[in-house]
Amino acid sequence: MSKPLILITNDDGITSPGIRNLVEAARELGTPFVVAPDSPQSGQGHAITITKPIRLKEVDIFEEVTAYECSGTPADCVKLAKNVLLADQTIDLCISGVNHGSNASLNIIYSGTMSAAREANIEGINSIGFSLDSFSYKADMAPSKHYALQIMKAILAEDKEKNILLNVNIPDLPLAEIKGIKVCKQGKGRWREKFLENTDPRKQTYYWLDGEFKSDSEDQNSDLSALRDGYVSVVPCQNDLTHYPMIKGLNYLEKI
Amino acid sequence: MSKPLILITNDDGITSPGIRNLVEAARELGTPFVVAPDSPQSGQGHAITITKPIRLKEVDIFEEVTAYECSGTPADCVKLAKNVLLADQTIDLCISGVNHGSNASLNIIYSGTMSAAREANIEGINSIGFSLDSFSYKADMAPSKHYALQIMKAILAEDKEKNILLNVNIPDLPLAEIKGIKVCKQGKGRWREKFLENTDPRKQTYYWLDGEFKSDSEDQNSDLSALRDGYVSVVPCQNDLTHYPMIKGLNYLEKI
Repeated sequence: MSKPLILITNDDGITSPGIRNLVEAARELGTPFVVAPDSPQSGQGHAITITKPIRLKEVDIFEEVTAYECSGTPADCVKLAKNVLLADQTIDLCISGVNHGSNASLNIIYSGTMSAAREANIEGINSIGFSLDSFSYKADMAPSKHYALQIMKAILAEDKEKNILLNVNIPDLPLAEIKGIKVCKQGKGRWREKFLENTDPRKQTYYWLDGEFKSDSEDQNSDLSALRDGYVSVVPCQNDLTHYPMIKGLNYLEKI
Repeated sequence: MSKPLILITNDDGITSPGIRNLVEAARELGTPFVVAPDSPQSGQGHAITITKPIRLKEVDIFEEVTAYECSGTPADCVKLAKNVLLADQTIDLCISGVNHGSNASLNIIYSGTMSAAREANIEGINSIGFSLDSFSYKADMAPSKHYALQIMKAILAEDKEKNILLNVNIPDLPLAEIKGIKVCKQGKGRWREKFLENTDPRKQTYYWLDGEFKSDSEDQNSDLSALRDGYVSVVPCQNDLTHYPMIKGLNYLEKI
């Protein structure tokens, strides 16, 4: 049997430590193939590039691994990999990250890392987004690699028809202090924004987004509580945003 | 009682016909307040601007309506409205659009229009994204205005605690031919991409995203079927992406 083909992308850019970590993990399980943004794309959400051309450039920065840097968004990278670069091959798994910063809870909405994984999922590829709960580029990546390897191995053994999409977040702890994995739900929380307001050298006002993420509940089965308690959180995700219970309550709109 | 304060944004940019249409509709129900992108932002998904400053400029393009153009994304516009421009006021409703092009089905994932509405929803504001099933800037906007007015009136009468988020899509038909409103679920479908591949004046290869949206089911209760049958589709949405049935099936990951 041929080795599984593992597409790797991220949103921090192709030169970030996190993606190197995933390449090393994927190398142990199959053939890594990298298509990642040529610059940081944090906060890009599920943006795609439709009003301008996208560039691809093959780069030699991972030993014996084919890699392309892309001028587009994380979702663009996956679309180009699936429809252009690997159009005649079967991608067995797509992994995205390791993101520098948690994508637990509502962060999934803003996350380029998770959008890349979601795009692969939409294309029918089992996919996993990995994020480390630390914004530091010097954070210890060894625990992320350890758990990425375990979870990738498990998902490679899964049926592709299941169309699995996982949001995996790893606590910023030494490997020995991580208590294991929790398969759980998306926690409730949101950013409390404040904008830094200042003037530029030409005396024009500018605003710069800042804020603090706050949990909105103490739910024991959420990714937020798993991370807080020292577990790796694994949330299976889907793309149907319908609020089903509300359909009935709004049925009266059909009569206005 | 004071008139309701209605925040209006979009992703096609502040000068597009769609937003003007919503301003005119909102004027009949309350006080419109516009914060919208200074350039088209289609396909921006839930992108937010975190690595650079954002600019706001007050503009006088809607008669007797306060309006700001913003250098950021649709989600940025809502964050700035809520946290800076209207920080000391209560926003009664946020409306986004009218988008030029359908945001039914999976398009909600890529849509800047719906991301703006979702951002308001996250901030606790009842919100509605409106999209017209036509990419033409010359499309007839009268039916959109008619239905936007009816739906806005209904949602303004709703309890704010319900935290309503609606994805409304309007068929490209004359008002008399639209059969009414269907409150329904998100349809199953996705884009089939193809990339135009070409070379620029400097002989460098570029790729340009193209594709075709295809429905994946004939479900009678979906927005796709409602639109096809000549109805305005209204899908109530939420932000929990957890695939609940899959949690149990993946529990074994806790033991690897």
